[in-house]
Amino acid sequence: MLSKNKQKLIRSLQQKKYRDRYSLFLAEGRKIVEELLQEGAEACILAGTEKWIREHSHLLSDIKVTPDLLGEKEMKSVSLMSTPQEVLAVFRKPDYSPAWETVEQSLSLALENIQDPGNLGTIIRLAEWFGIYDIFCTPGTADAYNPKAVQATMGSLFRVRVHYLPMEEVLERFPPPGPPHVYGTFPDGDCLYDTPLNYRGIIVMGNEGAGISPALLPRIHRKISIPSHPGSGLDSLNVAVSAAVVCAEFRRRQRKVNHG
Amino acid sequence: MLSKNKQKLIRSLQQKKYRDRYSLFLAEGRKIVEELLQEGAEACILAGTEKWIREHSHLLSDIKVTPDLLGEKEMKSVSLMSTPQEVLAVFRKPDYSPAWETVEQSLSLALENIQDPGNLGTIIRLAEWFGIYDIFCTPGTADAYNPKAVQATMGSLFRVRVHYLPMEEVLERFPPPGPPHVYGTFPDGDCLYDTPLNYRGIIVMGNEGAGISPALLPRIHRKISIPSHPGSGLDSLNVAVSAAVVCAEFRRRQRKVNHG
Repeated sequence: MLSKNKQKLIRSLQQKKYRDRYSLFLAEGRKIVEELLQEGAEACILAGTEKWIREHSHLLSDIKVTPDLLGEKEMKSVSLMSTPQEVLAVFRKPDYSPAWETVEQSLSLALENIQDPGNLGTIIRLAEWFGIYDIFCTPGTADAYNPKAVQATMGSLFRVRVHYLPMEEVLERFPPPGPPHVYGTFPDGDCLYDTPLNYRGIIVMGNEGAGISPALLPRIHRKISIPSHPGSGLDSLNVAVSAAVVCAEFRRRQRKVNHG
Repeated sequence: MLSKNKQKLIRSLQQKKYRDRYSLFLAEGRKIVEELLQEGAEACILAGTEKWIREHSHLLSDIKVTPDLLGEKEMKSVSLMSTPQEVLAVFRKPDYSPAWETVEQSLSLALENIQDPGNLGTIIRLAEWFGIYDIFCTPGTADAYNPKAVQATMGSLFRVRVHYLPMEEVLERFPPPGPPHVYGTFPDGDCLYDTPLNYRGIIVMGNEGAGISPALLPRIHRKISIPSHPGSGLDSLNVAVSAAVVCAEFRRRQRKVNHG
């Protein structure tokens, strides 16, 4: 049974306003909830079917709240998802500030006003795959704790640090000429494969429609672009797909240097 | 004004059953509708705000139906999207069968039971970017004409041919030892960057959760994997992101051969 207050809280977490106010967020579904519990995320509400709770006692021994047992019908009434899941949980948002010394020695991402929470979640996930642990988002970027973003991160949200800061504050840490360098993707940038890439740096990805804003141009050290195949008439690629191809190429080069 | 019958038809196209029965699909929003009209897609219903219709007469001169003028409120009542758009249209699905001689001479993709229509749409779009014009989907794969997939393709849907066929029928066209080769992504595959890649071939991508099914294993000539960065604990990458990194690497190698 979930109390009326808990139900109300869960529903309120659809809205960024309440996620910010309470510093909480909602995760639904086995995969994401189990990953976050394993990661040591602090659960404030945990509601699951009898079967799920019975089978996951090993994950529940450390949590501070009593799990709520929910029937299928109850699960449906609180779930935000079209197919209600076996488990949902409300977690406390992690709290950290940027460790600039580390950031300057590694590869990170900066996102300017990425609108789609699914794109953002996918980027957080692929960042971890490629060993990128700091993502800087402009305040106009989608919220990483939006339920859709949380779903797409699949738990990377607790291992990759997502910071919300004005882009100027971030990029002033990367004075030219570098390294560390500031890379940005542009339709008229130099071909990714012909550009020197240094694994100390930050990759700026622009908004889905508008790309990187002109105001940031003076801060970009190296403009890059992913070449399309001759004959393809497209002028743009999904932002998460672009981020993946660029991050993969940074790591491929680094690997080549290390392995000779 | 949209007649009751048209409204009913539009709503029915949320379901694959009706998209198949009528061989029609729905597209909503300026970008996708304009791209499809430019591509010469046959519109059976076109409904837009007065402003949109006034400003796009050049796109409407060739269409066979009379556009329906809709107010904001009417648009909202037929739209499937959370934010109703300025224009929506019902298009006839394109009709084609695989040109096997061309397929055997080029690079194509095969998708085994990809579930998420957004992933499918993103893959169709990135395929075009990387010059891949045939995608073979198992019948268990999401429908490319699902509104979410249509939205993510951004018009590539009329330039990339999406075929629904059992995987065995497709892969028997690629007898070992090749070329053309059958490539498949596996967690234990050979590192993508150390594997010989031939631009004549087909890349098999597996289901989001289960990967490529064991039954297909004997048909795969080369098992590849995208290396994660040392220290990353992840065991999987989003399927559209994986497809992007693999396709980009095929084209990077081909480019290198061509440019010396």
